Parts: sequence; C-alpha cells; structure tokens
Amino acid sequence: MNKLVFTIILVAIISFPSATQSSPDQVVKSIFNEALTSNEAYENLRFLCKNTAGRIAGTSEAAAAVEFTRQVMEEMNISRVFLQKVSVPHWERGTVEFGKIVSSQFGELEVPVSALGASPGTGKNGVISDIVEVKSIGELETLGMEKVKGKIVFFNCPMDPALENTFSAYGRAVSQRTAGPAAAAKYGATGVVVRSLTLAHDDVPHTGVTRYNENGPCIPAVAISTNGADTLSLWLESDTGLKFHFTTDCRNYPETESANVVGEIKGTVFPDEIITIGGHLDAWGPGEGAQDDGGGCIQSIEVLRLFKVLGIKPKRTIRAVMFMDEEMTQSGAIEYIRWAEEHNEKHYAALESDRGVLSPVGFGFSAEGERLGNLYELKKYFEPYGIHWFKQGGGGADIGPLRKFGTLLISYIPDTQRYFDYHHSANDSFETVNHRELQLGSAAIASLVYLIDLYDL
Amino acid sequence: MNKLVFTIILVAIISFPSATQSSPDQVVKSIFNEALTSNEAYENLRFLCKNTAGRIAGTSEAAAAVEFTRQVMEEMNISRVFLQKVSVPHWERGTVEFGKIVSSQFGELEVPVSALGASPGTGKNGVISDIVEVKSIGELETLGMEKVKGKIVFFNCPMDPALENTFSAYGRAVSQRTAGPAAAAKYGATGVVVRSLTLAHDDVPHTGVTRYNENGPCIPAVAISTNGADTLSLWLESDTGLKFHFTTDCRNYPETESANVVGEIKGTVFPDEIITIGGHLDAWGPGEGAQDDGGGCIQSIEVLRLFKVLGIKPKRTIRAVMFMDEEMTQSGAIEYIRWAEEHNEKHYAALESDRGVLSPVGFGFSAEGERLGNLYELKKYFEPYGIHWFKQGGGGADIGPLRKFGTLLISYIPDTQRYFDYHHSANDSFETVNHRELQLGSAAIASLVYLIDLYDL
Repeated sequence: MNKLVFTIILVAIISFPSATQSSPDQVVKSIFNEALTSNEAYENLRFLCKNTAGRIAGTSEAAAAVEFTRQVMEEMNISRVFLQKVSVPHWERGTVEFGKIVSSQFGELEVPVSALGASPGTGKNGVISDIVEVKSIGELETLGMEKVKGKIVFFNCPMDPALENTFSAYGRAVSQRTAGPAAAAKYGATGVVVRSLTLAHDDVPHTGVTRYNENGPCIPAVAISTNGADTLSLWLESDTGLKFHFTTDCRNYPETESANVVGEIKGTVFPDEIITIGGHLDAWGPGEGAQDDGGGCIQSIEVLRLFKVLGIKPKRTIRAVMFMDEEMTQSGAIEYIRWAEEHNEKHYAALESDRGVLSPVGFGFSAEGERLGNLYELKKYFEPYGIHWFKQGGGGADIGPLRKFGTLLISYIPDTQRYFDYHHSANDSFETVNHRELQLGSAAIASLVYLIDLYDL
Repeated sequence: MNKLVFTIILVAIISFPSATQSSPDQVVKSIFNEALTSNEAYENLRFLCKNTAGRIAGTSEAAAAVEFTRQVMEEMNISRVFLQKVSVPHWERGTVEFGKIVSSQFGELEVPVSALGASPGTGKNGVISDIVEVKSIGELETLGMEKVKGKIVFFNCPMDPALENTFSAYGRAVSQRTAGPAAAAKYGATGVVVRSLTLAHDDVPHTGVTRYNENGPCIPAVAISTNGADTLSLWLESDTGLKFHFTTDCRNYPETESANVVGEIKGTVFPDEIITIGGHLDAWGPGEGAQDDGGGCIQSIEVLRLFKVLGIKPKRTIRAVMFMDEEMTQSGAIEYIRWAEEHNEKHYAALESDRGVLSPVGFGFSAEGERLGNLYELKKYFEPYGIHWFKQGGGGADIGPLRKFGTLLISYIPDTQRYFDYHHSANDSFETVNHRELQLGSAAIASLVYLIDLYDL
C-alpha cells in the first residue's frame, strides 16, 4: 500500500466512525439526538391517524393501515418486509349510536353512548326497557333472573381514582365491560349499558370489546360516558321506574383476512436470533387510535429507521411487528407464535409498546436474578433522559405468548396518568401526541434494544 | 372514671386516629388518596383560568385573581390569610396584534404575532421596514449600526430540540427575547420580531417579557409563531428586499398596587419557623395561565387544604404564597423577602412550583452533604407514586431571594416535555391540565413538606 492510499483510508476511518466504533454512550446519545430532531415518525403517525381512523380488525381502514405501514417499511430499504396473513373477526360500528334516559319524573335526556365491540345492533327501534343498576357481575348474580329479565342492566363501577397506577384501576373495573353483557344475557336482560372505563368526567363514551358465551344469547351493549352514567345513576335513585332507550346499528360479519406487518434488519452475528418490537395496528373508532396503539406501531418502525440511519449493525435480527387484532381476539398474536413455531424461530427478546406514547418512564422485564440485575445496570444510560423506572415484570397482550419460549419479555412504560382520558374513545386523536414524548419513547426503545443486543443480556 | 366512660374514650381514640397518630407511610397514603379523589383544586384552577385569564401584573384580571385566591383560603378557615401589598408595573396587551410579510416576489402573508411584555405599541400605522435576520445578539453586534439602522431585527434562534431538558433549551435561547429588543434599539432598529420560544411547530405566538435599557430607546417588539418564523426566514433567503409590517397597541401605564396572597397553618411546635410553598399568580394573556402558573398557585393552596382536611398538625408554620409579578419584574418576590426581613421571619424551607403541572417526576434541593442525603432518604415514600428523581439544585424566581437566609430551597419538578408547547401562549388553557397530574403534584408537595417538617430535615 502506498502512503497516499494508506493516508486516505486512515482519514476515511477517522472521519466517518460507524456506530459500531462509537462507545455505547455515544451511540445512545446519537439515537436520542436523531429521534428528537427527526419528524418522520411523527408524520407517519399523523398519516396513520388521519387516514385509517376506526381501523378495528377486518375493516377497510385496517387494511389501509396494513398497506401504509408495509409501504413505510418497504421504503426504508431494510432487510425484509413481509405480511403474516391472519383470519380476523370483522365487526363494524355502523353509523347509529343513540342513548336516552326516559323518566316520567325528570323528562327525557339524551346521553352519549358507543357500541361495544362484537355486540350486535339493536335493530331500528332500539332497545327500550326498565333499567337496573349494579356495580359488578357479583351483584348482578345476587339479583338473579327475577329482577333482571326483560330489563337493561347498567354496570356502573367507576375506575378507582385513588390508585396511582391507572392500568390497575382499569384492570379492576374492566370485567363489567368484557364479561358483563354475557352475564346479563344469561339472566334474560334485553341490553347492557356499561360505565365508560376512564378516569375523566366528561361526555365521551369509551368503547372496547365484550365477549359473549359461545352458545349464549348476544344482547346489544353500549358504553355510556361517565357524566351520563352519573346522571343516570342519580335519576335512578329517585325514579326506579325510569327507562333507558338505546339504538345501535353495529354488526358482526364473517371472518376476513388481514395481516401482521413485519419488517426486519438482519443480524450480523446471530441472524437467527430475533428481537421483536411491537405495537398493535388495529384501533377503536371513533377516534384515531393515536395513543392506542398507532404510537406503539410507529415507535416500532422508528426503531428500525434509527438503526438504519445511524448505521447501527445489530448482532441479532431486529424485527418490528404491527400486530393485527389485539383489541378483539388477539388473532395476530396467536398467528405470530404459530408462525414462529412453524419456522423454528429463536426469539431472544420481545418488547411491546401498548400503554400509550406519553413521556417515557421506564421498562419492565420478565427476568430475575443475575439477568435482571444486568438489565438494571443499563439504567445509567437512560437516567439522563429522565427514564428511571426499571422494574421486574414484562409482557403484553401481543408478545405474551412468546413467554413459553423463555423469551425475555419487555414492557415499555410511559407515563399513563392521562392515558385513559383518551383510551378507546373519540378523544384518542393525533393531537394528544407530543412529538418529543413519542420520540423519547422511540429512542429509549431503540437504545434498550441496542444495549441488550450489544451486551448479550 | 367509670368503666363505661373509659370504654367510650378508648373506642373513640382507637376509632378516630388523627394524622399525628398514624405512621408517616399512612399519612402520605392518606394525602395522595385525598388529593386524587377530591375535585376542589381542579375546580379552583378552572375558575382561576376561566375568570382571570390575561392576569399579568397591574391588570384588573390580576386584581381578580388576588381576590379569588384570598377568598378561597379565607373559606378554608386556616390560621391566617393576608395580603402583602406591592407596587407592580402595569402593561396592557391591548387588542391589536397584526403581522405581515410583504414580499415583492412572493406577495403578502399574514403571520401570527404577539406583543412582548413591557414593549410599547407601534401606533396605528404600525412599523413597516426592511428586515434583517440574526441568530443571536452577538450576530447583531457584528452587523452594527450600518446594517441595522432603520430596519426591523428578526431574532430567529430556535430552541434546541436535541436537549432532553426543555428548560435548558429555553434558557439557552431566551436572551433574544429578554435582551434582543434593547440591543437592536441601540443600533437604531425600528422594531423587533422574535421567534417564539417553543419546541412546537405551529401558528401560535409565545410572548414573554423583554427588558429595555433604562435610558435607551424602547422599540416595539413582537413574538412570531415558529411556522411564521420559518416562512419569514425562507422568504428572506430569496428576497432580501422583503419588508415586515406589524402593528400593536399594547401600552405601559404607571405602576399600580397589587399584592402577594398569603395563607398559613400555624405550627404547633415551632410556629415562628416557616415553610413556604408558592407559585406565581400573574400570567400572560392570551391564554389562561393554567400551566404557567395557575396550577402552581392552586397546588400551593391545595397543600393547606390537604393538611387541614386530614388533620395534619405541622410543627412549623406552613405558608402558601401566590407571588405577584413573576413574569415582569419579580416585584412580589422582592417584597416577600423585604417583608421577611422587616418581620424577622425564620424561613426553614421554601418550595416553588413553576414548571407546569404535568405528571410529577421529582424534586431538586439546594442542600448538600448529610442534609441532602437525609432528603434523598425520603425518596422511598414517593417511588410508589412514580416520583423518582431527587436531585441536587433547588430554587426558583420567587423563592430564590430566600437563599441568603440559608433557607432550604426546593424545586418541584414535573415532566416538562410538552410544557413549552403551552408556555406564554394562547395554548396555555385549563384544558391542558389533567386532574390526576395536578393532584399527584399537590400530594407530592404536601407529603414532602409533611416529611421535612416531621423529621426536621
């Protein structure tokens, strides 16, 4: 080699250090820097929200979301983009959602309602019956057939505001929505009205799935806004003869084909070992599904973009997955693990972002002992960005099935104090998402994946 | 004492444990529980925002805010409520705020502007001149009189989005607003346009105070929205003959009387020792001053209410202070320390909440060594509520002067990623405040004050 060529090569090496030559500290810094100064993820989320709102599994909006995220990843020129086809339920909300309290004492009052996912429509005339209020399925059971038959059951258990963890408050109250209608149907109810699962006091109903017994009756069911629920409960105290009237034209259709959308950057050392990062692509309408879970999907894609644009070459294959149908039956998650088993995939770690995209707080890990201790050691890289909370316990509805492989499961934990103000409602719009909060999350996830891969944790 | 009376007393003692009989853990829990389940603070903030918007010092809105917060504390039946009268500057925004780019190449474009606090109005015809863009006062100085005289100076230094700490990004860019107009006036400029200090890209101008040299000229000055600034800069690249036209009718009036509003719960053991908790009552219009800093004021009042309603008897006097005129000249803070000196007050500790009321993250303390270590020990009480960040360094514009007494100064630190989207603009509305985030903050502050007082830290 002559001296000039040597000098040129040397200068080239010094001038363009790749990510793999930088210290982990520098790489993490470059990840956060790129995330906070790029608009790509934010604009991708805007497009998803504004053009595929109401993308519950099986709808044309869901199909558009599949195609959009596939195209975004295709254009990134990464190792591989593909679809995992999956058969999903198909329920459509329709266009009629009407609720009214009818009291001989107080008059009539229209209240905001929203059909529960999987529930049948009421027919054109709606359901109008006496209404009986309960706080729980247990209370419903003590009433029995005699007091429930022919009536609408009103489940009115609020989420507990005293709990700091809003997901715990949700978890304790959600069975009235998921299992309440099936239970009420068993006792001969004509319909169900469920208090919205939110900590906000407002006029916006929050929907979500309900599940009927396989051979039991399917009765119409709606969520009522928290203000509406409070009024209904107050009026019922004085007017026990009060009636409720609601109309929906939602409808269940035959199963249809949809897909998980998958994008990969191939690993350079252990290409067969996969680190999955995922969110779910389906989302409830009304609302744009920005926090739940468009944001989680876009963060997953953004992790790939950050690796790509910064020239980070992972040892393992990094895979972004937009899971389909988390909200109704988790058919996407079931297909994901079926596919993994069929293809003998090795799943090293999996991270799920499905708690909204407010400011990042930390991560939860399904590890213990030394491995957990080693993961905790990574905290030092995140503390400069205000990310402090590394805790035991990781998983999620979509990555949960990977647990049986012994895969390290990781929960991305953002702040969630205002999350349920948006969740499953018309409030869940792109405008609730702050660019920095979204991108601090993208950067945190990318950095964690980079470090776990680098240090073989 | 007969057996029956003894039994009754015993039962009474067992049944109604006061806060002082409960463990610190239980007291902290009761504080968070009460804060998260009460609507008083949230509704007080709503009233303040909706009825005293634009309450910059000296205005009738500021006077209404003084009276409202005084009344709220009076109705709490606490030890003492009083006003500390203070002479404040009086500047009114007026009703005209108009900005336009005038380009012979691209045409005319109206852009959103907002007068800077303390700036004079333009007169009816406004200022219309050639415009020269700079990134800093330093750059302005290199241009000198020749290139500035007779022109409008456009300061266009964006806040750095790559910094995790949004207050650092603000601090690095703010001098263009506070000192830019005075500097431009020195070189004969006719007016100043300053890029809004926000990390958002939108059409909302963000105002704030500017300061002129005592005997120098006062030239009109406005903030321009970030989108407006980007367009103006882009057009200037091609059309260096471009003119800018802006009109304001803001005005400075003679100083007027206003007040700090103070409420106290007397200490039971060391009544002469004061722990101050404060926010500032004045706020920029347009906007409601919810995050800056109505929320901090209401949290301070809420701390007193929590102590009162839970029967917590502090050893030291707990004082809530609504400081007046933080935004313009800090005359309220200056009066506060003057008063303290005049009355020989002992200030044990002081906490300021003036970084918005998004989710609480932690506290900063002006302590070191063993005292700091003891304060860090308190973290265990807060971690269950997601409050992790105890750091060295505490103070604030209003409590800062107490440093000379050796008072422990504490900064309340909430999440601030989206704070500057609202700051000093029409975006700073009550609707940006989440009940839980506000109240987790109130509870965290009340708990910290309780523990510092209890353990004599």
